[in-house]
Amino acid sequence: MRLSRRHPRYESLIVRAGLARAFREGLVVPEGLIAQGRGEAFDYFLGERTTASARRAERIAALWLWAAERPVVSVNGNVVALAAHEVARLARIHPRLGVEVNLFHRTPARARAVARTLRSAGVRRVLGVRPTVRIPGLPSDRATADREGIYRADVCLVPLEDGDRTAALRARGQRVISIDLNPLSRTSQTADLPIVDEVRRALRNIGDDLSTLVRRGSARAMPPFDRHAALADAIRTMDRRLIRAARGPMPRKRAGR
Amino acid sequence: MRLSRRHPRYESLIVRAGLARAFREGLVVPEGLIAQGRGEAFDYFLGERTTASARRAERIAALWLWAAERPVVSVNGNVVALAAHEVARLARIHPRLGVEVNLFHRTPARARAVARTLRSAGVRRVLGVRPTVRIPGLPSDRATADREGIYRADVCLVPLEDGDRTAALRARGQRVISIDLNPLSRTSQTADLPIVDEVRRALRNIGDDLSTLVRRGSARAMPPFDRHAALADAIRTMDRRLIRAARGPMPRKRAGR
Repeated sequence: MRLSRRHPRYESLIVRAGLARAFREGLVVPEGLIAQGRGEAFDYFLGERTTASARRAERIAALWLWAAERPVVSVNGNVVALAAHEVARLARIHPRLGVEVNLFHRTPARARAVARTLRSAGVRRVLGVRPTVRIPGLPSDRATADREGIYRADVCLVPLEDGDRTAALRARGQRVISIDLNPLSRTSQTADLPIVDEVRRALRNIGDDLSTLVRRGSARAMPPFDRHAALADAIRTMDRRLIRAARGPMPRKRAGR
Repeated sequence: MRLSRRHPRYESLIVRAGLARAFREGLVVPEGLIAQGRGEAFDYFLGERTTASARRAERIAALWLWAAERPVVSVNGNVVALAAHEVARLARIHPRLGVEVNLFHRTPARARAVARTLRSAGVRRVLGVRPTVRIPGLPSDRATADREGIYRADVCLVPLEDGDRTAALRARGQRVISIDLNPLSRTSQTADLPIVDEVRRALRNIGDDLSTLVRRGSARAMPPFDRHAALADAIRTMDRRLIRAARGPMPRKRAGR
């Protein structure tokens, strides 16, 4: 379709067009596009920027990933469509970080397409293309995992994850860092370290922090993280913007961050 | 895909699966699925129910449509996927109501598919399949309309409409009733009578009110409508739920309404 640059939501429509393309390439499922829309609405309320509280969570996430013995980042269709390069950068900076394909709507062809895109972006080893084990307590094909990856990971970074799966990982004693724009989702409510931020912004920030840790050569002392405070802060930010919006038009994204 | 009934968001996932099916049938475009997700998030904040203020707006919408000389309802891919039967019911109750296919991402095949679904649902005459005129002030193919339909309508009911188009209709002096879950969207902000409610709930309520008007045989006096108060009320509802959510888990849909 032709899209006029005069359209006031041109930029956001272009992001949508990109996801639609990923959809046509078989990376993203229809349900994934709907989930993206939900995220867009929450990001709109957040002001389409990283809050100070999310930025703190991202810094601690980098420390957790750096200190972990077997850290893994889980990648689904939406994550690879939106942030394949950000994932590849994390894996480059942090060579012990496993990268595992993890699809809610899994078909072998889709798993291969996601892996192909990750490899094109520079990920050397992609786990989970042929799952080798099942995570207990999960129904259907969402239980599948890689014995070398998420299954034995001590810290899992799960962007845009399903609540069931987050809960199942937690039940196994694994530490879960989530990236989810909805502070009220079961994923955010269940994760040990919920990051309420857009996936590309969050992964870029975590990458920046990992770079700093690599340069320093040693991890700093681990600061405490209050998950309830972090979630409450995200909700308060959305609420403040709503109240402001009720008085006048909502300000769009600002420069910086 | 197989979906477990044990999944806590089973119902909402089933609605998504239905839209995904409509997508595969060519009714809905990828961008439409993303737009649906945005709507879902706003409905979540509304409590997935019709507010008292939206219900008032729907009653007045029925009166406007009933009193109009050439009322038309505009139907796009998402509307037909979600509410073809609700649209057909409106047309059955209110025989003067034109039903026009109006696609943001228009192809002749998609226009035909939307018309076909409307006819299967019971709409006798579908306008706009072959557009005959352009609405001034709109770029690209979104300007197309039916000379017998939206182009000469005095009252247009536009569910899930684009802001540009809403503004162009208003600029021509046509009265616009919108149905849009985002009270801050340009469509809601521009329409004469913005209904902030989910499209199926809104069309069912308007249908009920039209039935009552038909039984009575005459329209009541037209009550005043304060669009700013209606939009502020929707925002306040979302705000109240956010504040409550910050204290504990958000209650899901309740029975009734």
